Amino acid sequence: MIRHTVVFKLKDQVDSLGEQAFFNAVKELTAIPGVQKFECMKQISPKNNFDFGLSMEFENAELYEQYNNHPSHVHFVQEHWIKSVQDFLEIDYEPLVN
Amino acid sequence: MIRHTVVFKLKDQVDSLGEQAFFNAVKELTAIPGVQKFECMKQISPKNNFDFGLSMEFENAELYEQYNNHPSHVHFVQEHWIKSVQDFLEIDYEPLVN
Repeated sequence: MIRHTVVFKLKDQVDSLGEQAFFNAVKELTAIPGVQKFECMKQISPKNNFDFGLSMEFENAELYEQYNNHPSHVHFVQEHWIKSVQDFLEIDYEPLVN
Repeated sequence: MIRHTVVFKLKDQVDSLGEQAFFNAVKELTAIPGVQKFECMKQISPKNNFDFGLSMEFENAELYEQYNNHPSHVHFVQEHWIKSVQDFLEIDYEPLVN
C-alpha cells in the first residue's frame, strides 16, 4: 500500500467560486483507476502555511504511476493545479515494519 | 475528527539500535487516552527530505490538547523527540466539507 498525500495552499487570487471549481475538479480524480480512500481535507495546524490536503491510497507502485500518467491527472495538473496552487508539498507513505 | 500527522527525519547519528529504541518509545504514545488510528509510516517520496511519518486521530480538539499536554507525551518529546529528530513538519487535518 502506498498513501499519496499532498498539502497545499491556493493562490490569493483564487476566490470562493474558483475554490469551488478547483475542488470539483479534484473530485474527478477519484474516477482514475487504482485510487482508493480518497480524502479532501482542511489543514488546521498553525505550525505550517498550508490550507488543504489530499490523500489517496494505491495498492502498489505500478498503480500509483498509472495514476500519475493518466490523462485525467495530467489534465488536472495543467488546467487546475498549476493555475490555482501557490505552494505545496508531496508526502508519500508506506507502512513501517519495525 | 482531527488527524494529527508529523513527517520527520532522524539525526544522522541515530544508528539502527537508536532508531529501534525511538520507535519503541513512539509506540507508547498509543496508550495516551484519545489516540485513535495510530500509524507509523515510512516516507517514500523523493520530493521531500523526510524519512518517516506518524499519524493519529482525535475525536475533537479537546482530546488532541489533552494528548499534547499528557505527561507521557511531554516525556516522549523531551527524552526521545528532541534528542533524535533532526527536522520535522506537523500537518493537522479536519474533513473538508465542500
